[in-house]
Amino acid sequence: MEKLECVFCAKSFPLDIFFPFCPECGEPLLVSRTKKQRSFRTDKKLAVEIFGDFLPLERIEPGLTLGEGDTPLLELGRLASLDKMPFTLTKNETVNPTSSFKDRGSVVAVQKAVSLGIKTIGTISTGNMAGSTAAYAAKAGLKSVILVKEDTTKEKILAAGIYGPILVKVKGDYGRLFRKSFEIGRRHGIYFMNSVDPFRIEGYKVTGYEIFLQLGARSPEYVFAPVSAGGHLIGLMRAFLDLRDEGLIRKIPVFVGVQAKGCSPLVRAFSSGKTSFTRFSNPRTIAHAISNPNPPGGNIVLKMLRENKGMLIAVSDAEIIKAQKLLAEREGIFCDPASATVLAGLCQLAQKTSFKPRDRIVLVITGSGLKTIEDLDIARIDYHEAAIDGLEKMLDSVLR
Amino acid sequence: MEKLECVFCAKSFPLDIFFPFCPECGEPLLVSRTKKQRSFRTDKKLAVEIFGDFLPLERIEPGLTLGEGDTPLLELGRLASLDKMPFTLTKNETVNPTSSFKDRGSVVAVQKAVSLGIKTIGTISTGNMAGSTAAYAAKAGLKSVILVKEDTTKEKILAAGIYGPILVKVKGDYGRLFRKSFEIGRRHGIYFMNSVDPFRIEGYKVTGYEIFLQLGARSPEYVFAPVSAGGHLIGLMRAFLDLRDEGLIRKIPVFVGVQAKGCSPLVRAFSSGKTSFTRFSNPRTIAHAISNPNPPGGNIVLKMLRENKGMLIAVSDAEIIKAQKLLAEREGIFCDPASATVLAGLCQLAQKTSFKPRDRIVLVITGSGLKTIEDLDIARIDYHEAAIDGLEKMLDSVLR
Repeated sequence: MEKLECVFCAKSFPLDIFFPFCPECGEPLLVSRTKKQRSFRTDKKLAVEIFGDFLPLERIEPGLTLGEGDTPLLELGRLASLDKMPFTLTKNETVNPTSSFKDRGSVVAVQKAVSLGIKTIGTISTGNMAGSTAAYAAKAGLKSVILVKEDTTKEKILAAGIYGPILVKVKGDYGRLFRKSFEIGRRHGIYFMNSVDPFRIEGYKVTGYEIFLQLGARSPEYVFAPVSAGGHLIGLMRAFLDLRDEGLIRKIPVFVGVQAKGCSPLVRAFSSGKTSFTRFSNPRTIAHAISNPNPPGGNIVLKMLRENKGMLIAVSDAEIIKAQKLLAEREGIFCDPASATVLAGLCQLAQKTSFKPRDRIVLVITGSGLKTIEDLDIARIDYHEAAIDGLEKMLDSVLR
Repeated sequence: MEKLECVFCAKSFPLDIFFPFCPECGEPLLVSRTKKQRSFRTDKKLAVEIFGDFLPLERIEPGLTLGEGDTPLLELGRLASLDKMPFTLTKNETVNPTSSFKDRGSVVAVQKAVSLGIKTIGTISTGNMAGSTAAYAAKAGLKSVILVKEDTTKEKILAAGIYGPILVKVKGDYGRLFRKSFEIGRRHGIYFMNSVDPFRIEGYKVTGYEIFLQLGARSPEYVFAPVSAGGHLIGLMRAFLDLRDEGLIRKIPVFVGVQAKGCSPLVRAFSSGKTSFTRFSNPRTIAHAISNPNPPGGNIVLKMLRENKGMLIAVSDAEIIKAQKLLAEREGIFCDPASATVLAGLCQLAQKTSFKPRDRIVLVITGSGLKTIEDLDIARIDYHEAAIDGLEKMLDSVLR
């Protein structure tokens, strides 16, 4: 059985799947390294099999996968000509079975659930995690309990509800619900694989290993990722720390966590040199998927970024909206506002920092724009109307 | 330069990119086989590179790809226990950059457009093709002209419009617009890569080759695919005909084209033994993506299915809705109603046909449910409401 460790107390604890938090300081626990010998099984097909040595699973059950991972790493083509833009690639996590990076975590956490004989899993989510958890539960034949906010839109209810979970709109404070979910989980045998679940975080490492291999077994110089609860960035960083431990790279990339200005508790703490953040009052941003005023993994993020010369930056909604449109119009990638923060962050940083000509920048695009289509303003889209007989004249004037 | 051929007149013609139809009978032309030596380049990464020998492209430009293809082939896990269900796999084309199979065709047609020096591409679409064509045009730096129906929903306008095409809502008959688009295209240098574009169809072949390799260099016994304009099914069949020509398989799978009962012009023609179909009056089905009353590739589909012992079947909207829910609830795949026809068709056929125990069935899932979320009835989704303090009691009663 795995041990979990607290990065603050530097102690390890036996796995308690129903409450993976430090009994001493309350911070989230992470999985301790277990396997001595680790290598990439590049002869395998599934991402979780190729990188299985680096995951805390005794064995991989292929019947529990939806074919997640192995996502494209694409060079910015047309955006490369923007002012001061360094050599940049996107890691497109929207091309996952439920259209977000969450599937990377769900597949590992669900494998763990099944191996432990758990019959019901759960999560708290405003969107992407709801659909991902419900879909993997469906594939595995597990029940799932999906707790969403009171004001969750009909579209988001449908996108998760289609998988047949026990879906509950919950009224009340989400920090309180986060803690409460674990109490209920323990009493009812529900494994709540929430945002900073240690196995979920291990799953996110796979994205990092893929980037390394896709670059020809090299590390990029910078990795930009949106930061909400913190789990995703923690996983991505752990991937490169693993690669360094294995002697495969010398130094880890500079990680740049990006938050929306309207909800940036970690940027505020980091820029004032604090080791712990405080709750962000009145969050307000179009990037709903990362609008977490009280991120449970926040203090780990602050610690890891400080120890590894990372950065945290905030971008405005106007910058986000502009970046979302640029990614679609120039690169053919339609992402959600939360993902667009990474391009907004790069544009911002490029004005202040001199990237070296050989620097390789990776932007992790986390979720599909199709899931946030109700946030898109139709006024931002140009369209015309014509009858068949008037079409040619109309096109003629537009194409000139 | 490629030659195009008419499968009815058995003649070939030089490529006319602005009107790829037979000058004699008016049917769509297909690409003639050009390369003598063909093999799979499994050392390559991109699907269009691996299967490049089988595509009518002089060279592949990696900068024009969005990382399409290499989609999961997954065994039905929990649905396998349904009554009389044979061994079945899904080929999940929703995991493509713009969430549908159209990307397979767009990448090849756009490569061709760029190689011919074309600056503007176009398409007529009600949904998936609009987004796919606009996205690949954006990546390639081409202008795109996207013609959509007058009553296209705001969501669909947004999902295509985000890529910055010249988007036009056109009022009038779509059969007429289809023909008109080519006239306008020729005069204005716009390559209209519509549903049965010969290069688009070549791109769909890649899905077939992938299925073959994913099954361990073997052919499945049956392939089910939704049928609308016909291009997709023609491409899938051509893939297995190629494999047979190469001596890699002995016989091609039984292809089962599935249409919605409410718009089934090809099923009607096929079941009455006709070699050509007639327009379907008053189409009405929830499967909008395949609601084409006058499919331009229809007669080729009829001919190819007849020559290769294929089938065409129709399923009702009730069967479609049930199948869509089953795929989500049991297999974790959220597809659109058009895709769900394939499971509905298999369930229908399984009641009449005795599949052999060793038969392998592949269902091609063509588009994501996220794009048709407005067609989902919230009444079909169970959800609950609770305050935090009442949550445990509520869950207790549901979980019992």
